Amino acid sequence: MDFIGANILSVSQFERGDIDRVFAVADTMVPYARREKVTRVLEGAILGNMFLEPSTRTRLSFGSAFNLLGGTVRETVGITASAMAKGESLYDTARVLSGYSDVICMRHPQEGSVAEFAAASRVPVVNGGDGANEHPTQALLDLYTIRKELEAHGRSLDEFRIAMIGDLKYGRTVHSLCKLLCLFSNVQIVLVSPPELAMPEDVVEKLRAAGHKVSVSDELEASISHVDIVYSTRIQEERFASQEEANLYRGRFRLNREIFTRHAQPNTVIMHPLPRDSRAEANELDTDLNEHPSLAIFRQTDNGLLVRMALFALLLGVEGKVDQYSHEVRWHVRRTPV
Amino acid sequence: MDFIGANILSVSQFERGDIDRVFAVADTMVPYARREKVTRVLEGAILGNMFLEPSTRTRLSFGSAFNLLGGTVRETVGITASAMAKGESLYDTARVLSGYSDVICMRHPQEGSVAEFAAASRVPVVNGGDGANEHPTQALLDLYTIRKELEAHGRSLDEFRIAMIGDLKYGRTVHSLCKLLCLFSNVQIVLVSPPELAMPEDVVEKLRAAGHKVSVSDELEASISHVDIVYSTRIQEERFASQEEANLYRGRFRLNREIFTRHAQPNTVIMHPLPRDSRAEANELDTDLNEHPSLAIFRQTDNGLLVRMALFALLLGVEGKVDQYSHEVRWHVRRTPV
Amino acid sequence: MDFIGANILSVSQFERGDIDRVFAVADTMVPYARREKVTRVLEGAILGNMFLEPSTRTRLSFGSAFNLLGGTVRETVGITASAMAKGESLYDTARVLSGYSDVICMRHPQEGSVAEFAAASRVPVVNGGDGANEHPTQALLDLYTIRKELEAHGRSLDEFRIAMIGDLKYGRTVHSLCKLLCLFSNVQIVLVSPPELAMPEDVVEKLRAAGHKVSVSDELEASISHVDIVYSTRIQEERFASQEEANLYRGRFRLNREIFTRHAQPNTVIMHPLPRDSRAEANELDTDLNEHPSLAIFRQTDNGLLVRMALFALLLGVEGKVDQYSHEVRWHVRRTPV
Repeated sequence: MDFIGANILSVSQFERGDIDRVFAVADTMVPYARREKVTRVLEGAILGNMFLEPSTRTRLSFGSAFNLLGGTVRETVGITASAMAKGESLYDTARVLSGYSDVICMRHPQEGSVAEFAAASRVPVVNGGDGANEHPTQALLDLYTIRKELEAHGRSLDEFRIAMIGDLKYGRTVHSLCKLLCLFSNVQIVLVSPPELAMPEDVVEKLRAAGHKVSVSDELEASISHVDIVYSTRIQEERFASQEEANLYRGRFRLNREIFTRHAQPNTVIMHPLPRDSRAEANELDTDLNEHPSLAIFRQTDNGLLVRMALFALLLGVEGKVDQYSHEVRWHVRRTPV
Repeated sequence: MDFIGANILSVSQFERGDIDRVFAVADTMVPYARREKVTRVLEGAILGNMFLEPSTRTRLSFGSAFNLLGGTVRETVGITASAMAKGESLYDTARVLSGYSDVICMRHPQEGSVAEFAAASRVPVVNGGDGANEHPTQALLDLYTIRKELEAHGRSLDEFRIAMIGDLKYGRTVHSLCKLLCLFSNVQIVLVSPPELAMPEDVVEKLRAAGHKVSVSDELEASISHVDIVYSTRIQEERFASQEEANLYRGRFRLNREIFTRHAQPNTVIMHPLPRDSRAEANELDTDLNEHPSLAIFRQTDNGLLVRMALFALLLGVEGKVDQYSHEVRWHVRRTPV
Repeated sequence: MDFIGANILSVSQFERGDIDRVFAVADTMVPYARREKVTRVLEGAILGNMFLEPSTRTRLSFGSAFNLLGGTVRETVGITASAMAKGESLYDTARVLSGYSDVICMRHPQEGSVAEFAAASRVPVVNGGDGANEHPTQALLDLYTIRKELEAHGRSLDEFRIAMIGDLKYGRTVHSLCKLLCLFSNVQIVLVSPPELAMPEDVVEKLRAAGHKVSVSDELEASISHVDIVYSTRIQEERFASQEEANLYRGRFRLNREIFTRHAQPNTVIMHPLPRDSRAEANELDTDLNEHPSLAIFRQTDNGLLVRMALFALLLGVEGKVDQYSHEVRWHVRRTPV
């Protein structure tokens, strides 16, 4: 795809080469994210960060990524702050607001609304999540994290094993990730969920059509024993017929240090799209793993910055000029790695 | 007037020469708004963007205008976020908050509150709308748009024809625009509204005292057939005695492509202060005109950036230095014109 | 203490030399706060300004202080905007959000929460107020203001007289200020409050152990007649057994121009942590003193900028480089002093 001026609305718009491109550019962003260098390449550019549904993490990640390229951010949070409440159409909103910025990130509670907005926008639009539909930058950062963790052990995206655990029926992130995995080869996928929350059949079909091996399980321990990546997601109790059944499954899919140490291989990596519910009654990914080197959940969010910086650089056509306008950081950096 | 350090509170404070000055400076902002150039002239300056009543469009327009001059924005949205809830006076709020910025834009739900705030502020204040009272930058951008559209056809503000349509009784924008029109000569004004929503007599008096020809009509088609500008505004149904009467008038003042094409002249321009209500039951300015070249409503909001940039530059005394601190834009600009 | 990379969580972490250090750096910030100069020393640095409980004044003060050093601000306001609502732990929030910024300021309604957040944060954290517990930068700006006002009359923090008035039992700011005063010598302190709202005994003990003279009074007039500083605070009526009692005390501790002129010495300075309740029924510090040169309450908030700039500079290790990356301000500054 031609990234310059494009909208990023869905994972479906990426081909294999596009992914490679984004990830290669993301790699070049490391010195800026680590605060070794500062760039002014986007000096004067304005990101319209439109979060009509609140999301602290994603909103700040987009905003900081744009700042790290030297750009400025104008922000809107919450639907009530908007003229839409007075009957303004998405078309009008997009026509007007796109006049105030150079690129727009939008989260919106309604499926399809970001694409509708993008069609009327006069500048590129990045989908920051539209209801249950798409959240393409989350899928990209997940895949980038898998690649990076695999490469640390000499592996690649073209031959690895992953267990996806939890709510595979409603989980937007696992669906998008599976779509992206179809661009690669020889992935072994174990799907671990209660039957009520199984992966939709059409997603499984696509994975198989791409040549991947897909198996289904409802046993956590067996599933994590031969994989490179454990991708855990939240199970919400309201999905079940009764509280008893919910408790049964939540207990069975709860990953903690003891289970992980006993059953997983040393190099296995744990991921989660966050937020994870750390209250005692949920705790799907136990806090006793917080200091475990296999826990990659905060490396994921760090990687989100790199991927979003890469997308902004590509959309605005500056990916080759970042270093040209850079200088050394001037302050003392205290930043604990994760 | 001496713009340096002044407050912008009301359209009444402008004389003809001031308007000419603002518009001349606004014209020089085009290369920055079009992202051909980037300036650092306001590097280090802070705009306090205080929207105690929410308004996405106006808030972002002020903020982006300040950013486009190289300045930084600190923002407050909503009255609950404020110490005012604990009994703090506007005087105290102004004394304190003006210590944190170099210029303040304020929207406030109460009439007169922005002037009260400005009296205690230690830095210049721009009124971003105080209840039903004033919204001077909206009137300036409307007039600047009229001038620009007229000039595209070799005309000027000193001899043109305008039809104002809709709620002329309560519409803050049409009142302010009429005040500004009194600074010019030979304007022919057709006022089109239901009798309940007629233009107040004192506004009509002022227009006539300025030498303008004012006529009144309640027929949309006849009114738009010999004007250069159609300025449409929202008719709210709750203004009427009965739903039947509301429907009658809404149907009679609804401008769409068929009516416009049949009755208006080719060069006639359509304006609206926005937001327009695009729901089927309102739709005062039909969406079937969205792609029509006569529709200037998004050129209006684009012009708002230019006018606000001009005001900031004049208040801070940098209107002659913008180019001196400028450089070429570094990213690829994809910006569809409107 | 070693400021580089430190957290600022409590006034208890400061020794005398640390205070002197912060104040010396604050003094060097004056040309930047007065807009004589602009610095880029923190260009590229991001402040995460996390106000999970709203506070316009403190939030804007932190944000503007960071901007005045050339840094960028990403902001979050309100707890609902946060994943915490979905059961995310402070640990997770801190791990993630600290990846997006270089220093974090946090206000949180719960005591101890900011320290908990700081323990998991990967970058330095400044406490912007955690419930009734601590608000260290307020205490620092109060003390810095006292020092500056004393020095204007050739006095110093090591020998002065202060009257603290109002709610001394629940007032977080007076407790913190007293802790800091223990680092100095020969302070005479008059504590003026209703018996129900008296200063806690342990605070009085600490002041006496530090060698200060502490006396208690319930007469406003006598108390302010021989002091250098009058530090007034709000008395909330809900603290009393009956409305009659509340009215009695509020009347007795209300400072106005007549009382001040008749009883205080000419050089005496009036301070207040703000917001003050200016409604007629409260009015603990009468608005008829607004233009009095002894009223230092807006000099306090101005000093807050200097102290916060100093802390940021010290935490990020740039206090010696601010001038090196500076240039003259480019705009016309209109800033009324207070």
